[in-house]
Amino acid sequence: MTTSASDTRVPVYFDCDTGIDDTLALVYLLSRTTHRTVGIGTVSGNVSAEQGARNTLDLLKLQGFEDIPVAVGQFDHFRAPYAGGPAHIHGVNGVGDVDLDRGGEPIAEDAADLLIRLSHEHDGALEIIAIGPLTNLAIALERDPSLGSRVARVTIMGGAALAPGNLSPAAEANIAHDPEAAAAVFEAAWPVTMVGLDVTMHHRLTHDDREQLAAAEGELQQTVAAILETYYRFYDTILGVRECTLHDPLAVAIATGDVVPSLAPVVKVEVETGSGPARGATVADLRGMYRGNPPVEGARHTVVLTVDEPFGPQLLQELLKA
Amino acid sequence: MTTSASDTRVPVYFDCDTGIDDTLALVYLLSRTTHRTVGIGTVSGNVSAEQGARNTLDLLKLQGFEDIPVAVGQFDHFRAPYAGGPAHIHGVNGVGDVDLDRGGEPIAEDAADLLIRLSHEHDGALEIIAIGPLTNLAIALERDPSLGSRVARVTIMGGAALAPGNLSPAAEANIAHDPEAAAAVFEAAWPVTMVGLDVTMHHRLTHDDREQLAAAEGELQQTVAAILETYYRFYDTILGVRECTLHDPLAVAIATGDVVPSLAPVVKVEVETGSGPARGATVADLRGMYRGNPPVEGARHTVVLTVDEPFGPQLLQELLKA
Repeated sequence: MTTSASDTRVPVYFDCDTGIDDTLALVYLLSRTTHRTVGIGTVSGNVSAEQGARNTLDLLKLQGFEDIPVAVGQFDHFRAPYAGGPAHIHGVNGVGDVDLDRGGEPIAEDAADLLIRLSHEHDGALEIIAIGPLTNLAIALERDPSLGSRVARVTIMGGAALAPGNLSPAAEANIAHDPEAAAAVFEAAWPVTMVGLDVTMHHRLTHDDREQLAAAEGELQQTVAAILETYYRFYDTILGVRECTLHDPLAVAIATGDVVPSLAPVVKVEVETGSGPARGATVADLRGMYRGNPPVEGARHTVVLTVDEPFGPQLLQELLKA
Repeated sequence: MTTSASDTRVPVYFDCDTGIDDTLALVYLLSRTTHRTVGIGTVSGNVSAEQGARNTLDLLKLQGFEDIPVAVGQFDHFRAPYAGGPAHIHGVNGVGDVDLDRGGEPIAEDAADLLIRLSHEHDGALEIIAIGPLTNLAIALERDPSLGSRVARVTIMGGAALAPGNLSPAAEANIAHDPEAAAAVFEAAWPVTMVGLDVTMHHRLTHDDREQLAAAEGELQQTVAAILETYYRFYDTILGVRECTLHDPLAVAIATGDVVPSLAPVVKVEVETGSGPARGATVADLRGMYRGNPPVEGARHTVVLTVDEPFGPQLLQELLKA
């Protein structure tokens, strides 16, 4: 990994709550030769920010990327203290209770400060991929309101424009955990691509895919297969099949351009922060759908609504090669 | 029209804000031999409650149903005073500025009292079809909380479960005009069928349909064709074609069983009444979609999501026969 000025790879700040599908997303992101992960921040969500950093550092060691700085981010969300993660989905430790070899240690900066620093070092080029609650991004915007002007794009896994929510009828979990932070991220002066349940629920790894990973020779593949077991067990109770949805890795693949959405209008998105039944809803102004999605002047929120090609097979190939 | 006890037709209280598509809905409802309209209440929406009653009474005269009682309902909504109707959609008088022969006069009772009285006269059998803001129904529930137990079913045109709103990104107009009333209607102890933008936007009368009505010999058909002109002019600016969507008549056809939805899960619906961007959203708990829509215990809100057969041709045939 080089840091020279002639490096043409896209610099990425990755914000995550690692997490089983975060694990897949991280492995996939690091496999991209077009992009260079220059820093990772963690936030409480699937697990606490501290545990997420531990998992991330251990996974970086496994993949040979120990030089990427990892910063612990916010433990609590804007309005609600962190209440612990869903151990039945991600395991108690967030990586399916698999014991990973211990990697390095987090840096002293917190995630928001890391993001602000990287935005200066890669002014105008930095892209953010955020696959957990958006707390760190909102804290960074509070600390430095000019941040938006130095970031090329933010891609988030989160929200549900036309699809039902998951944590509540109206809200997807990453947004629901910190609606105030999400509202700040959509209000800020940077372009945001929202990869929500509208698409992520339709892309899966199958039982057979996992068997292939388990049967592979690489330690990485075998570890990923072991981590996935807990996730499959949970999704079996939800979907009725031993498969898992690819929320976080799909967001990464769309951010890197490896997956191109077939329908993704650019509109205005607002986040409902009231305390009613729609709290945490991503309210996307998709009324243009009724008249052929004409361009919306000044809009900067790309809402991914359809991805035609199934992403599972592509992800499996990359995981087998990684 | 008979009121004898041996009458097996389903008694209907019809609540409307007549309105051009309300006109189509009324003509269609009165053409059904399986149902008997025992009373009509009007509410401010497309036009004021008073003007809606005028239009309704004039249309009843034109169709020979002058014995159906029409009651003027609420002028203002729960939280907001009525601000006037969209004259560019429905014309200043609500029926495309067509001058109708003057019909009878409204009864002395207001709409909520009429509804309560009819619920006693047709205890357990009365069905409500409401195609405007739900103010009258909520007032009736306030006056008599036991109303719900005497009503067999409420079918509303209103809301948007997975589709975008129209009056706002999140909210359909009938709900948006009086979210507090809508919330009360969904909370009450009666089954509600919601026919919202999810389906109504997909059913149309075409330019040719209107030409057929205009060329018919009947005064009713020619009048309806004249009324439709204003509506077509508006939809041309929205849809880019001289067609009109069939919001209200589709709700009636689903209420009468003439149109059977292909997908209509029974779930819980709540209305967002906060002041944020989701105000007026109908939050339907459709998370069961992710696992094959299993039955939801205790749920009583049927959310119509798809209607396969195009309703326009069927409506045209009924209008030509009426």
